[in-house]
Amino acid sequence: MIVILKNGYDERQLESLLNWFDGMDVGVQINEGEQTTVIGLVGDTSALDIELIKAIDIVESVSRVKEPFRKANRKYHPDDTVIDVRGRKIGGGSFHIMAGPCSVESEEQICAIAESVKESGATILRGGAFKPRTSPYDFQGMKSEGLDLLFLAREKTGLPIVSEIMNANHIELFEDVDIIQVGARNMQNFELLRELGMIKKPILLKRGLANTLQELLMSAEYIMAGGNEDIILCERGIRTFETYTRNTLDLAAIPLLKELSHLPVVVDPSHATGISRLVKPMSMAAVAAGADALIIEVHNDPKNALCDGAQSLTPDVFADVVSAVNDVLKAVGKLPVG
Amino acid sequence: MIVILKNGYDERQLESLLNWFDGMDVGVQINEGEQTTVIGLVGDTSALDIELIKAIDIVESVSRVKEPFRKANRKYHPDDTVIDVRGRKIGGGSFHIMAGPCSVESEEQICAIAESVKESGATILRGGAFKPRTSPYDFQGMKSEGLDLLFLAREKTGLPIVSEIMNANHIELFEDVDIIQVGARNMQNFELLRELGMIKKPILLKRGLANTLQELLMSAEYIMAGGNEDIILCERGIRTFETYTRNTLDLAAIPLLKELSHLPVVVDPSHATGISRLVKPMSMAAVAAGADALIIEVHNDPKNALCDGAQSLTPDVFADVVSAVNDVLKAVGKLPVG
Amino acid sequence: MIVILKNGYDERQLESLLNWFDGMDVGVQINEGEQTTVIGLVGDTSALDIELIKAIDIVESVSRVKEPFRKANRKYHPDDTVIDVRGRKIGGGSFHIMAGPCSVESEEQICAIAESVKESGATILRGGAFKPRTSPYDFQGMKSEGLDLLFLAREKTGLPIVSEIMNANHIELFEDVDIIQVGARNMQNFELLRELGMIKKPILLKRGLANTLQELLMSAEYIMAGGNEDIILCERGIRTFETYTRNTLDLAAIPLLKELSHLPVVVDPSHATGISRLVKPMSMAAVAAGADALIIEVHNDPKNALCDGAQSLTPDVFADVVSAVNDVLKAVGKLPVG
Amino acid sequence: MIVILKNGYDERQLESLLNWFDGMDVGVQINEGEQTTVIGLVGDTSALDIELIKAIDIVESVSRVKEPFRKANRKYHPDDTVIDVRGRKIGGGSFHIMAGPCSVESEEQICAIAESVKESGATILRGGAFKPRTSPYDFQGMKSEGLDLLFLAREKTGLPIVSEIMNANHIELFEDVDIIQVGARNMQNFELLRELGMIKKPILLKRGLANTLQELLMSAEYIMAGGNEDIILCERGIRTFETYTRNTLDLAAIPLLKELSHLPVVVDPSHATGISRLVKPMSMAAVAAGADALIIEVHNDPKNALCDGAQSLTPDVFADVVSAVNDVLKAVGKLPVG
Repeated sequence: MIVILKNGYDERQLESLLNWFDGMDVGVQINEGEQTTVIGLVGDTSALDIELIKAIDIVESVSRVKEPFRKANRKYHPDDTVIDVRGRKIGGGSFHIMAGPCSVESEEQICAIAESVKESGATILRGGAFKPRTSPYDFQGMKSEGLDLLFLAREKTGLPIVSEIMNANHIELFEDVDIIQVGARNMQNFELLRELGMIKKPILLKRGLANTLQELLMSAEYIMAGGNEDIILCERGIRTFETYTRNTLDLAAIPLLKELSHLPVVVDPSHATGISRLVKPMSMAAVAAGADALIIEVHNDPKNALCDGAQSLTPDVFADVVSAVNDVLKAVGKLPVG
Repeated sequence: MIVILKNGYDERQLESLLNWFDGMDVGVQINEGEQTTVIGLVGDTSALDIELIKAIDIVESVSRVKEPFRKANRKYHPDDTVIDVRGRKIGGGSFHIMAGPCSVESEEQICAIAESVKESGATILRGGAFKPRTSPYDFQGMKSEGLDLLFLAREKTGLPIVSEIMNANHIELFEDVDIIQVGARNMQNFELLRELGMIKKPILLKRGLANTLQELLMSAEYIMAGGNEDIILCERGIRTFETYTRNTLDLAAIPLLKELSHLPVVVDPSHATGISRLVKPMSMAAVAAGADALIIEVHNDPKNALCDGAQSLTPDVFADVVSAVNDVLKAVGKLPVG
Repeated sequence: MIVILKNGYDERQLESLLNWFDGMDVGVQINEGEQTTVIGLVGDTSALDIELIKAIDIVESVSRVKEPFRKANRKYHPDDTVIDVRGRKIGGGSFHIMAGPCSVESEEQICAIAESVKESGATILRGGAFKPRTSPYDFQGMKSEGLDLLFLAREKTGLPIVSEIMNANHIELFEDVDIIQVGARNMQNFELLRELGMIKKPILLKRGLANTLQELLMSAEYIMAGGNEDIILCERGIRTFETYTRNTLDLAAIPLLKELSHLPVVVDPSHATGISRLVKPMSMAAVAAGADALIIEVHNDPKNALCDGAQSLTPDVFADVVSAVNDVLKAVGKLPVG
Repeated sequence: MIVILKNGYDERQLESLLNWFDGMDVGVQINEGEQTTVIGLVGDTSALDIELIKAIDIVESVSRVKEPFRKANRKYHPDDTVIDVRGRKIGGGSFHIMAGPCSVESEEQICAIAESVKESGATILRGGAFKPRTSPYDFQGMKSEGLDLLFLAREKTGLPIVSEIMNANHIELFEDVDIIQVGARNMQNFELLRELGMIKKPILLKRGLANTLQELLMSAEYIMAGGNEDIILCERGIRTFETYTRNTLDLAAIPLLKELSHLPVVVDPSHATGISRLVKPMSMAAVAAGADALIIEVHNDPKNALCDGAQSLTPDVFADVVSAVNDVLKAVGKLPVG
């Protein structure tokens, strides 16, 4: 960490600052130049609070040379993390597609979709049981009953399941879920992250609507700091001024996250754009940019369903997406989905 | 709600849609124009999920004529909500200042600051016991011990206290806190909001970093839907491309929230800008724009404190802010703070 | 266009409004519902100023059913526009790469780069002669001398050239340039757009830092309204809160622009990210998402050049990007570059 | 400027870098620490291109200690710039209101509005003759005829006039305009800025939709570098995700711009919010935050005008705004408008 002092700083304040660094157990190098004095901090600076140091009167600016995350950092863990989910390997060069409905609605629905997406090539089943909804008056999901139906669908198809948790008190209910998803709105629900750090279960952590990549990695670090290191990072679009799409999918996040971290990266083209006809081109682009997996909404039998998400695909279109994804996987030298 | 159909829509799909509206207990008017067919929905449409309707194949666009929030809506509650906090009235024309440190650090610290801000004119004491921190390695607050010190400071000064909750499981610990704060990162932690709707206690709800005013009001609605209607809305800056300030303070939110809702509006100039020397002009501007209260960080005795927030004021500067705020209050025809 | 009136509107104001619509030569349908009155406007509404209508007292809201652009609209021009640049066809299924240095610096430099990128597979040479710089003290380009050197490099290599214009008074200087680029900062310099509409020359129009896709298409419409219909749209990243990359590349813009418009779409991964090692994955992703071309910065001989843009590639890396692009082109069923 | 080198940098590259700095005529201090090597650059570094230095292979990061603007910088010009406009002093503690219609439409209209706003307390008349419009099919203004009508209105009322320029070729037409406005979309039209630097005429420079405060000051620097130092900076809202208001008014920009620069700051609450009923509270807030002037849209006689901007005030409401502004001016220790 590099701390630049203001010109004409008070010597006693500097002394007080140096004593404080001393107590924090970091090494200190002072470079007093003619015009600028620069302090270099060496050793483990990840515990230093950069905002606090910036706030000190005599400090002009502070910049980290090292990132503030350790366990998620590729520098200290050069090899890709590979997460085993009932035999499926996520990360490390393979490719997976998680697919399923926005919400679990009935046994018939979830089992039919599970069979259908499996046939088209999906390797993991997604489905919401607890639904974060902007309005208290909207459908909030089937809750634990929804999880039971997911277990049933898994039994029938063999597909592992991923579902979203909204409350640390529900962790027991999720004991048999294969991958627990943390939604974008809970990315900085630090109490939830801390609890998820204490279990042994892969976590799919979605980037918040207005969160930087560094903040996403710090949230992964929260979970990892507790001992649970099986984190799957998820890019799902950020909020910008553009209103044509629901969010703006930031695909540069893929190579950046893979450079900064060893964790696998999944892309959610459905929520990122909110427009079902963009799922195919954005899925292909995500694969070309190096994603390890996709998570895609596929809806109910459209003949009977009145209300499908604007962002959900019909099973036919989903099969076409998988086929296109396989073509791009081949172009980038990877094996087909699965 | 106005639903515009696509040209050349399928008649059976329209019939299916109309049946569905019928089941939702809303009135339907169809206006079939030469070029466009428009459906008007009347009655209580707040339970209709606009995203679901948009997703229907034959629908071109949907727009609400009524807002999706009811209990927070000024249309159904024309008078200002006035919240009584140990005799202090928040909303309805009076003005309050909540002041105190970022974190409670010790008995000596919190009591000294409480005395000091009270003397300068603050009417409510703020202080963090549970701290949401981006990094798992940063100080996380004194937790329940910090709350106990706030109770002590209240006893000594008579100032009611406001402190942030991060976990619904802590609600019992907050039983004796006067105003419970929900931080920006938890504005859409719907599980927490729902639990807070079941208690009787004023809630200070901060706007999320990337949340619209409508989303803020929907989060207030979550709490109110449960029966707890004493919500104080808080504008604390939104995330934009500008990097000079930590966030961009959106003061137009004040008159808009007061027009859309009957709830009181407080402004946090400290977190909004992250720069202590902007607290004074932004406090004055917030008062001029019609805010009901301010929440301001004031730090420890600067002689002994090494690390104060870049955004915190010294007690002297805080006294100057209160005085300037009183001048602006007079200009807008309000009584002084308190 | 759909105009929804406020409840309890004044009848005389409605009459005045209807008279005004009458004078604008659009058809009017009024649907008076029990709770809401809706006016449908039919015919050519592209000349109606939506902001003006919104501003009328009795109007609740206005929404367009038709887009406000005509000449750029795929609805009225279903076939892809194909632009012929000295025999290279841009749009319609072929793929091109425009490559070259940020600035033209010398005859030796531009000719060497031109030869090098041609050999690696680039089909068009880019190079800046007039440079928009944030600071008046930074290098502003070689100006007309730079254009002369581009002509020379074209003569030697046969590569058509693209270069940026900043001032309508320079149009004569650009008479022999093959594609004239309008930079992001000038996307809404309407005076410049209007002048470019009066010449016969392909225009590469970059999306502004904070401009929506509809605004980009309206700027294309400005040029096309004057008679010059050879517009190449360019996505080059938008400004968001994320600071890791210079801008956020919005790849969903590609399929959306191609759906809304018949114009070819080029992607600039160099300026979009500002990081040279992201150029390869973002180029591949852009191809997978359906782009018609790329525009990439390739720098001087790195042995002699001290200062190359953070976003520029070395010739070797560029050759590797072309090869990867060709692999993805094959996967999406297109012919290789050129 | 502080340059931090990467660990394990190549010595020959460092030598090459130092030679280059040498040629740029800046002093160099090298601090070689155990873990990090830091180069401090002293002297006039405003001509150094920070992006170029960042791009060098061996450089980890670069940060400016000094701002890149000189002439606009308060450090080198501690006193407020006071601009004399036909006897009105803008900056330095006085307060002005510029008011008038969006567009000049007729002699009757502009003269009636001019009389009306003068009577209510406006000290400068605004009116658009050349109008930047997003659509080529919208009304583009009365152009030079509009300027002539403004001159007439000035003759009748004595109010100086401010109007927007869109093209450097029009500078002669604006010779008799008192303040030339550069619109938000042209803030980085560097060719226009450069030409405006060569005349002697106050320039009102609006902040671009997505431009930082530093970029605004760099655009002021462009004009000032040519010799024209009478610049009035204008905050008019930035583009964010919030859709309720047209833009988000950034009032923290006022104290920041006044701290960084000696130039006067005007606020445009009309365009910032796009909602006429927000003009009053935002005007009051702008005054409380320290603005030197306001620029407000006031529309035609509403009895005859069908289409007024959503953001324009009626003359009556404008008079009420002036009165409220005067109350706040008194509270902040300033004289009334004028």
